Amino acid sequence: MASQYDRDLDKNPANYQALTPLTFLARAAAVYPDHCAIRHGNLSYDYKEFYARCRQLGSALSKAGIGKNDTVSVMLANTPPMLEAHYGVAMCGAVVNTMNTRLDAKVIAFSLDHAETKVLIVDKEFSAAVKEALTLTESAKPIIIDYDDSEFEFAAEPLGNIDYEDFISAGDREFDWIKPDDEWDAISLNYTSGTTGNPKGVVYHHRGAYLLAQGNVITASMPKHPVYLWTLPMFHCNGWCFTWTLSVLGGTHICLRHVRAKAIWDAIADHKVTHLCGAPIVMSTVLNAPEDEKRQIDHAVEFFTAAAPPPEAVLAGMTDAGFNVVHLYGLTETYGPAAVNDWDSRWDELPSGEQAAKKARQGVPYAALEGLDVIDPETMQPVPRDGKTMGEVMFQGNIVMKGYLKNKATSDEAFAGGWFHSGDLGVMHEDGYIQLKDRSKDIIISGGENISSIEVEDTLFKHPAVQAAAVVAKPDEKWGETPCAFIELKPGATVSEQEIIDHCRANLARFKVPKTIVFTELPKTSTGKVQKFKLRDTAKAL
Amino acid sequence: MASQYDRDLDKNPANYQALTPLTFLARAAAVYPDHCAIRHGNLSYDYKEFYARCRQLGSALSKAGIGKNDTVSVMLANTPPMLEAHYGVAMCGAVVNTMNTRLDAKVIAFSLDHAETKVLIVDKEFSAAVKEALTLTESAKPIIIDYDDSEFEFAAEPLGNIDYEDFISAGDREFDWIKPDDEWDAISLNYTSGTTGNPKGVVYHHRGAYLLAQGNVITASMPKHPVYLWTLPMFHCNGWCFTWTLSVLGGTHICLRHVRAKAIWDAIADHKVTHLCGAPIVMSTVLNAPEDEKRQIDHAVEFFTAAAPPPEAVLAGMTDAGFNVVHLYGLTETYGPAAVNDWDSRWDELPSGEQAAKKARQGVPYAALEGLDVIDPETMQPVPRDGKTMGEVMFQGNIVMKGYLKNKATSDEAFAGGWFHSGDLGVMHEDGYIQLKDRSKDIIISGGENISSIEVEDTLFKHPAVQAAAVVAKPDEKWGETPCAFIELKPGATVSEQEIIDHCRANLARFKVPKTIVFTELPKTSTGKVQKFKLRDTAKAL
Repeated sequence: MASQYDRDLDKNPANYQALTPLTFLARAAAVYPDHCAIRHGNLSYDYKEFYARCRQLGSALSKAGIGKNDTVSVMLANTPPMLEAHYGVAMCGAVVNTMNTRLDAKVIAFSLDHAETKVLIVDKEFSAAVKEALTLTESAKPIIIDYDDSEFEFAAEPLGNIDYEDFISAGDREFDWIKPDDEWDAISLNYTSGTTGNPKGVVYHHRGAYLLAQGNVITASMPKHPVYLWTLPMFHCNGWCFTWTLSVLGGTHICLRHVRAKAIWDAIADHKVTHLCGAPIVMSTVLNAPEDEKRQIDHAVEFFTAAAPPPEAVLAGMTDAGFNVVHLYGLTETYGPAAVNDWDSRWDELPSGEQAAKKARQGVPYAALEGLDVIDPETMQPVPRDGKTMGEVMFQGNIVMKGYLKNKATSDEAFAGGWFHSGDLGVMHEDGYIQLKDRSKDIIISGGENISSIEVEDTLFKHPAVQAAAVVAKPDEKWGETPCAFIELKPGATVSEQEIIDHCRANLARFKVPKTIVFTELPKTSTGKVQKFKLRDTAKAL
Repeated sequence: MASQYDRDLDKNPANYQALTPLTFLARAAAVYPDHCAIRHGNLSYDYKEFYARCRQLGSALSKAGIGKNDTVSVMLANTPPMLEAHYGVAMCGAVVNTMNTRLDAKVIAFSLDHAETKVLIVDKEFSAAVKEALTLTESAKPIIIDYDDSEFEFAAEPLGNIDYEDFISAGDREFDWIKPDDEWDAISLNYTSGTTGNPKGVVYHHRGAYLLAQGNVITASMPKHPVYLWTLPMFHCNGWCFTWTLSVLGGTHICLRHVRAKAIWDAIADHKVTHLCGAPIVMSTVLNAPEDEKRQIDHAVEFFTAAAPPPEAVLAGMTDAGFNVVHLYGLTETYGPAAVNDWDSRWDELPSGEQAAKKARQGVPYAALEGLDVIDPETMQPVPRDGKTMGEVMFQGNIVMKGYLKNKATSDEAFAGGWFHSGDLGVMHEDGYIQLKDRSKDIIISGGENISSIEVEDTLFKHPAVQAAAVVAKPDEKWGETPCAFIELKPGATVSEQEIIDHCRANLARFKVPKTIVFTELPKTSTGKVQKFKLRDTAKAL
């Protein structure tokens, strides 16, 4: 006989609902109808209007025959339609595929095909690449919707004959949108820009999006009505789920089409921005702005950074400029951030170098992540908590992806042993904080000794002339490999190769000092990550 | 063929875990091991110790043969074992039944039997009532564990031969605790102290406890490491789930055995309490403390109140004393608070009377609650948003109970039509905020006109001599019913019946003015709710 706690206590519509971030928007529209939801140049929408526009999009898609599990791909900048796509697409049961706007035609074509795209919404700025991509697709024949941003001028012809505003205006502002049958249903698709092979389509579900949207609120101690500036591309892990987080709190999205220092400073000062996110390169952009573009900031601003540990010099500069920097860590496969460098206030007493060392660690799990550990992938045993033994960083929990779309073999491999294998190598410190120590291919093995490229880069960053630096392995007959440093200098700065080497010698073990120095602009992905594979090729050819 | 989004994208241990608040404690112990988790008099435990003690409790229960879906009943004050019971009991798969410590032996016996209690943990302070109850039980023969609080002296003999500290010391500090198979599994049982009939056993599940624990963080904008004072009994809806909320943030529980003004003021000043909860009677206790018991408070303190709308005079007093009062609303069936009087900062500009009127409204749903409405229970249609038309307040969502234990008929009735019927009557305002207008039996019908007892009470509260007031119907030959007011005066205050009537005439429609005034101490439940059924009997007998 079933236990008394399992009898006559079933799920019903009164006590069970599938978790979905769509309810956050419905609630925000009910509770904060006239609070500003979105600002984009001279445009602004309150929550009542934002919600109505999302419902219109869902309704119009539904009328166009789009429904459960259909893919709507979007090639959009950080503009209102991109935010609307994060809700409106799911409102008709479909899945939004947010494409990286800097991809080339070939990769665009691949993902349009692979995702079985039914509808494609394209910003005029990206028409050329998409136009070419459409000549390369094998199976995808999507309905094309053009978005012509009234705040910006682009010289391009529409790709189709449906304008975004016309399209949604045919939709119902009170559309009775479709709740997911199951919180495990897909909500979005994010292709990872891998360095080799075809991109992998990472599938998110409603449950994970709901939990990480709230997880951001809790981890970041975000209060009601934050003002959030979109320096992070929304196509990157759905903007680390902040696209949905803001609705939990009735916050204001400040759109930003191009990451430019002046626009960032102006937005922060004029709109009283309280939160923004981005790779360390965004912080450098902010700090290295010409003095006449910088503005006086009199309120607290939180900057969440990820993708690489914040270099000490950048951290110090951000603190001086009035920003509080929080270091997050995660992957596309974990909905964006899933770990946080949870700052212990006792560390405030440490000298700034030691503070930066603490801040460089990737940290501890979000409350929404059930497991985070550094594990030996052979034995699947956690490594000792000694801050030295390397292992693979692995994740377990509800904010880990559903899997890779139509890629069972890769999914199975990624989930082997009941943990998500990140591919990132790291150590576990005694206090339970993890720290990345390069992806395996980023480790330089010189004369049998492992050299962490991160450690060398961190040293380079401390030199006052260095704006950005990347270190890779250069094949060497004698040593196997040696460190080769690529350095981007600050505007107007000059420094010799020897000065850099002297600086490294003063701060690093001899064998870790770069043998080769190249002054150049670093090649970066659209999300600000340095493309090391290109540098590796360059180093090899030197 | 299944959609591409439903193929090879199944749940596995890497990407799916049952939601449970137990993981919050495990994380807090890992991330904040030496942060203070509990203070009780001279005792204090850090998170490492708190977690170890909970695991010991789970392990010891497990060794005693307690497992999945067994009931562990506790009769405990706001002390460390009560917090440990909120985690340790579930760690062996069992369900914690937190009993109201002010109940009489007969009701205790009923719930021990009904819950099929296997273990009973009893605080020495309540030994007498429990001893008597154990002579009245029909089937329950629980293992008895006595808790003798080292911080307080009580003259009572232990009921059994197992001491709490001895019991848990036999448990394993590194117990591999049991995660729920299913987040729908029961975590706790809360008997409602109904005014008629047998108490109903409200069953909570892990999913709801997880979601409301986080919901409190978000609704209350609680930052990391709050300091929470236990003025609310933890036996009341598991302390509105704040028992679990604090672990999300690594907060500090300040235990409080007895709700006394001096102890509250001292705790707030000495421990820098940031948050506390309670019925309005707790606010009155705080405000009416002798001046020499009050302390200077230089930091922000948030007071969450529920059970009755905060009276205007009390609100003003709290504001002057430096507290920010937030009005919450919910029922045992909704895990405690599920609605919040979400304060619009524009209301700060209103005169204080209008502000109090806004603050008296029960408000809008928590982000974790999917539906809250005022509905005509006959037609199941929402009432007009006019602030006038009465209907029944109904809830829908994941923070609604699993149901009533072994009470299918009552559960079915409560969930009829896919909504949880609260039994509370109210109106929906134009702006989407709900406001209670009495439970049906609290409405006074005089000469065919409905009189809201809340409205009359609110008027009485505004009189400077009134400490507490309750208004009920008194049978009347001519009018059917008339309002009868029971008034508790402030210490040392004097006022005549006529002065009260004049005050009401100046502020209320004539027919709403009480015809009878009784000066007396109000009978209250252990949670501070006025026992109106007793007053109704008195009024009838007058």
